[in-house]
Amino acid sequence: MPRVSEVHLAARRAQILDGARQCFAKFGYEGATVRRLEETTGLSRGAIFHHFRDKDALFLALAHEDSQRMADTAAEQGLVQVMRNLLTHPEEFDWLGTRLEITRRLRTDPDFRLEWSKQAAELTEAATQRLERQRAKGRIRDDIPTAVLLHYLDLVLDGLVAHVASGQATTHLDAVLDLVEDSVRRKPSGGQVVD
Amino acid sequence: MPRVSEVHLAARRAQILDGARQCFAKFGYEGATVRRLEETTGLSRGAIFHHFRDKDALFLALAHEDSQRMADTAAEQGLVQVMRNLLTHPEEFDWLGTRLEITRRLRTDPDFRLEWSKQAAELTEAATQRLERQRAKGRIRDDIPTAVLLHYLDLVLDGLVAHVASGQATTHLDAVLDLVEDSVRRKPSGGQVVD
Repeated sequence: MPRVSEVHLAARRAQILDGARQCFAKFGYEGATVRRLEETTGLSRGAIFHHFRDKDALFLALAHEDSQRMADTAAEQGLVQVMRNLLTHPEEFDWLGTRLEITRRLRTDPDFRLEWSKQAAELTEAATQRLERQRAKGRIRDDIPTAVLLHYLDLVLDGLVAHVASGQATTHLDAVLDLVEDSVRRKPSGGQVVD
Repeated sequence: MPRVSEVHLAARRAQILDGARQCFAKFGYEGATVRRLEETTGLSRGAIFHHFRDKDALFLALAHEDSQRMADTAAEQGLVQVMRNLLTHPEEFDWLGTRLEITRRLRTDPDFRLEWSKQAAELTEAATQRLERQRAKGRIRDDIPTAVLLHYLDLVLDGLVAHVASGQATTHLDAVLDLVEDSVRRKPSGGQVVD
């Protein structure tokens, strides 16, 4: 009965990912030892590494889950809404600090960087498509290439992740995101600017 | 002769900071062991920790040096120029990735967060004063509070640090910074907007 075992496999995989996410959030990348992963997942190292090759594979699978969730939001509502969700539910992003801890590896380990860029591609693709659609509707400024707007929004998102992950106050950030949103919008033309 | 020993002290302190900066850049915060700090500074642990209480104190002193340098630029030319310098001379900021590694501690260690916020205050102060001066000259938009503009520029700077520290390509980033600069500028008013 392959269906049953597929369901079982998916459930087991989800159990491992949920436990691993908690473990990374609490102890960081280095601190997430095999023993601690066993504790937070409730499974043996044999079971864990039957599903995921190693800690890197676990980490990249979690990052991919995030990217998919963000991509769904970005496709419907854009990258600024992804950022607003981050402000509204910072606890869902508790483990994001772990992403910052791997910055050095992104710079020094080309294989890891390649795997990382793959998982991020889905979000980039969704965000690009929405920008293009919004531009076609005349809602996005057309004096700046889409690629530049995308890199701009990406940079702000990176900054927001660093900000939230370090536990800094989020005062003014709603207003900051309004400014960001406004700066990519097409301005009404032909009217006198009111001063 | 107190002057001679003051000069000597300052030189020794600079020697330690330069070596420590290289050590953090190469090995990261955790990897910068006492033995490695001895190697990169060329001094004994006794000499190093005579000048700096512990590794945290060394790290915060380096961050403070950066903040002062950035504050000097921000006071004269603004935060966007600080970001442009980061793009032009990324090698001067090699150790910035280390700042990301301590994100978790900023969230979980209130004492460390307090010391960190002290070293960052100088840059915030310089940037705020320049924004106020530029606003008084009519160069900065006046429909958004200075505090919001400052948080906006801070967020982009944080994103840029994360971007550069992870060794990602800097394609489009000059154009992105043009967009950032333009979005805080006061727009010429009274004219017809050309479409």
